[in-house]
Amino acid sequence: MSNIDEPVRVVVWNENRHEKNNPKVAAIYPQGIHEAIAAPLRATGGIDAKTATLDEPEHGLAQDVLDATDVLIWWGHMAHGDVRDEIVARVKKRVLEGMGLIVLHSGHYSKIFKALMGTTCSLKWRESTDKERIWNVSPAHPIAAGLPEHFELPAEEMYGEPFGIPEPDELVFISWFTGGEVFRSGATWRRGHGRVFYFQPGHETYPTYHDKNIQRVIANAVRWARPTVRIADVCPNVKALEPLPVDSEAETRSKVGYK
Amino acid sequence: MSNIDEPVRVVVWNENRHEKNNPKVAAIYPQGIHEAIAAPLRATGGIDAKTATLDEPEHGLAQDVLDATDVLIWWGHMAHGDVRDEIVARVKKRVLEGMGLIVLHSGHYSKIFKALMGTTCSLKWRESTDKERIWNVSPAHPIAAGLPEHFELPAEEMYGEPFGIPEPDELVFISWFTGGEVFRSGATWRRGHGRVFYFQPGHETYPTYHDKNIQRVIANAVRWARPTVRIADVCPNVKALEPLPVDSEAETRSKVGYK
Amino acid sequence: MSNIDEPVRVVVWNENRHEKNNPKVAAIYPQGIHEAIAAPLRATGGIDAKTATLDEPEHGLAQDVLDATDVLIWWGHMAHGDVRDEIVARVKKRVLEGMGLIVLHSGHYSKIFKALMGTTCSLKWRESTDKERIWNVSPAHPIAAGLPEHFELPAEEMYGEPFGIPEPDELVFISWFTGGEVFRSGATWRRGHGRVFYFQPGHETYPTYHDKNIQRVIANAVRWARPTVRIADVCPNVKALEPLPVDSEAETRSKVGYK
Amino acid sequence: MSNIDEPVRVVVWNENRHEKNNPKVAAIYPQGIHEAIAAPLRATGGIDAKTATLDEPEHGLAQDVLDATDVLIWWGHMAHGDVRDEIVARVKKRVLEGMGLIVLHSGHYSKIFKALMGTTCSLKWRESTDKERIWNVSPAHPIAAGLPEHFELPAEEMYGEPFGIPEPDELVFISWFTGGEVFRSGATWRRGHGRVFYFQPGHETYPTYHDKNIQRVIANAVRWARPTVRIADVCPNVKALEPLPVDSEAETRSKVGYK
Repeated sequence: MSNIDEPVRVVVWNENRHEKNNPKVAAIYPQGIHEAIAAPLRATGGIDAKTATLDEPEHGLAQDVLDATDVLIWWGHMAHGDVRDEIVARVKKRVLEGMGLIVLHSGHYSKIFKALMGTTCSLKWRESTDKERIWNVSPAHPIAAGLPEHFELPAEEMYGEPFGIPEPDELVFISWFTGGEVFRSGATWRRGHGRVFYFQPGHETYPTYHDKNIQRVIANAVRWARPTVRIADVCPNVKALEPLPVDSEAETRSKVGYK
Repeated sequence: MSNIDEPVRVVVWNENRHEKNNPKVAAIYPQGIHEAIAAPLRATGGIDAKTATLDEPEHGLAQDVLDATDVLIWWGHMAHGDVRDEIVARVKKRVLEGMGLIVLHSGHYSKIFKALMGTTCSLKWRESTDKERIWNVSPAHPIAAGLPEHFELPAEEMYGEPFGIPEPDELVFISWFTGGEVFRSGATWRRGHGRVFYFQPGHETYPTYHDKNIQRVIANAVRWARPTVRIADVCPNVKALEPLPVDSEAETRSKVGYK
Repeated sequence: MSNIDEPVRVVVWNENRHEKNNPKVAAIYPQGIHEAIAAPLRATGGIDAKTATLDEPEHGLAQDVLDATDVLIWWGHMAHGDVRDEIVARVKKRVLEGMGLIVLHSGHYSKIFKALMGTTCSLKWRESTDKERIWNVSPAHPIAAGLPEHFELPAEEMYGEPFGIPEPDELVFISWFTGGEVFRSGATWRRGHGRVFYFQPGHETYPTYHDKNIQRVIANAVRWARPTVRIADVCPNVKALEPLPVDSEAETRSKVGYK
Repeated sequence: MSNIDEPVRVVVWNENRHEKNNPKVAAIYPQGIHEAIAAPLRATGGIDAKTATLDEPEHGLAQDVLDATDVLIWWGHMAHGDVRDEIVARVKKRVLEGMGLIVLHSGHYSKIFKALMGTTCSLKWRESTDKERIWNVSPAHPIAAGLPEHFELPAEEMYGEPFGIPEPDELVFISWFTGGEVFRSGATWRRGHGRVFYFQPGHETYPTYHDKNIQRVIANAVRWARPTVRIADVCPNVKALEPLPVDSEAETRSKVGYK
């Protein structure tokens, strides 16, 4: 991982398809969702934010890129199936070694999030005229730093419970929707040596990533997810640290007197 | 799931290879590890325990078998790679719908356990003359019912920390080994609508499954993991439960005034 | 604890003051909130439900009563301060030994709940015309058995986040309120050998405890909280289970070579 | 709380009685345990460590002291009962508002730790010739930063399971003892807006706080427990954020049609 005195090295990954196919999305995010997320991160200071997209070679996630990444941010939606399994395996391995991962909105159904959670990650949804109010249920959590007790998005896709996730390590946000639903919209899990944060807002047809509170949550999450270690996976056969009985196998067997 | 007044329907799955290849293992478990686990479950009453093994068609885990199973017990070691991915996916889907899963010993490295945990599931290990003492750190947990505060296995393979698992929902047992290691040897997680219990003892060259305390843990875990629901995965587009603003899309957009 | 084949022994505790002072409350609960809760428990079968109230000697919670109780249900509001500290200590000790505890509504501010949580247990509130919709976020949890995915109370006091509780072991229900708030309305914690469930609905001026879904949640919680052990508190000085170095104190000291 | 660019303001609290009464303890800790803990904290940089002891006025924990404290470290043993209840209440309130708390060794039985946990905090113990080996089960946790996978204390009091604590939010260390016991020796909980870390080593007759690894754990824990907020307790009656039905009370009642 990078030295604590150096900037956090972030890669914002985006499938970048809606922006190409849907003029409304392109109008909201002319540089792509990835740039809309990366630019305010750069502006906060202490964060070195690059981007990567699905249609680049290796989806922009070559091993040397991941090796130089502290925190990966993931936005995907219509093309989850186009993400190659070997790249997913590579990202998962890197998270388990310590890289932070922030999964946004429809990324709940990405291969990488489902692989790390081990569950369906399914939910209810509706694209309509709901307002979303995000309640900060853990105000002392670093991801909630500087945020009000609640804040609103005047229009956002409704995501509703039950959400098919493991019990979060920490639940940070719960959302209220006009249409009558609730959602665990900000939650954390540790996976291996990496920290994972899921954050629900961010449908492509709304200007959510231009919202100051949303930008603050993402910047907070980047700092929270920054790794302090990189530890490769091993499953070692080890010698004893204390004296063991010197026992022939026969003796071991003969003294095995199970009830 | 089965009616609460009816027996719990258990399938004990075993790769059943060591028993065929290693006369020492066959001597300890002449009917196979699966039968050594299933027989005492049957004897406790209220449990209908069948078995399945790797070399049966579909590894003995056809869809209709899983449909009629409340709790699946998993023992595998040398042949994890021979378990077909589509069968693993089938079992995982069934767990997420509510089936209980008890993973034993070297099953920590099974495809199904790793897929549900999302982590490496790696650990330290040593086959030597260690004694294992299992400490009951959650004596009120149903899986610990009727067990002493600690009990010993005179010989067992050492498994040591760090163990590459997500933080358990509940930690039930921690083990002490002669050689100086410790291990979270009994832990639970909820995954989807299913309950998962990992239990560390049970190396094939030791008569662990003949031990009365071990048998009691497994029987307790079966009762604990029994499902109360079976819920299929859906990700529904839903209508609002409360009145939504009647808004043309243009109006929605125009009122979106993000800060 | 009682034998598993015998009924669960429940005491429904109620401060029973509003019923005496407020004719509206008396009209809704002519036998008191305690009877409104106890009667449907009795009707479900397998539950032996008694009641106890604040103004009885020892608040109806003499030691022999607690000794014969598997699960205690607690409703209090205007008279938390009148509950004597020594009775609270007695109840807490009994919970830590294994007795289940179900805390209802304004009991969030009871001495016993605050003592077991260790936190403020504060929240937002409003008595108005809110509707409450309770979302079942953990449908496989025993407390949610037989309940719909969501259900409504046409009128209930609003309780809102942030709720000053420790991270729940399991979050079962999240509520939506008309006025724009959300609340973790059903949550569990283990404390010592006892299980604790907090459930938010039940303001005295609404007929909440006559609602079939609410009654089902409480009955489910009683069965879930039933203890399997009763273990008295000890902090024993113990002998070693393994050989220790035979060392004079002086030798111990001399070999202590800290870095 | 202090600004992130300024030093963390730590108070190391010690009952400081053994040092006065027992020449052996005084020989190991001539300036008191509090100074033995504070001095290496000061030496790490970025930490402003003061001390306070039981026999000072208000135990050295006047309100203005707590107001200017980010993280409080607590060592107590023989005189838990001498700590005045109103001071304990003051410290607890401050933790719930955001102050970090690190509880050491026999502090497991301090009033403040028991009040925050809500449980007995009992354990097994033995003062003998045990060696302790501390296993790092969560190597990516900030409290474990820079520590080896395991490290030893050549002599330490044995603390053994079961330990009467709530399920930790995060389990960082598990200890192995020569005599055959295990212990959850490093664990974290969030309580209100404050972070709590319990760390087991540190019996007064051993030079544990002179050990470099122990010093590192405590320094790491100080940085981890540093608050980002100070939030006073409130339980506000709030107005609705969304339009509520305009309903006379009679109408509300009449429309209440519970099943």
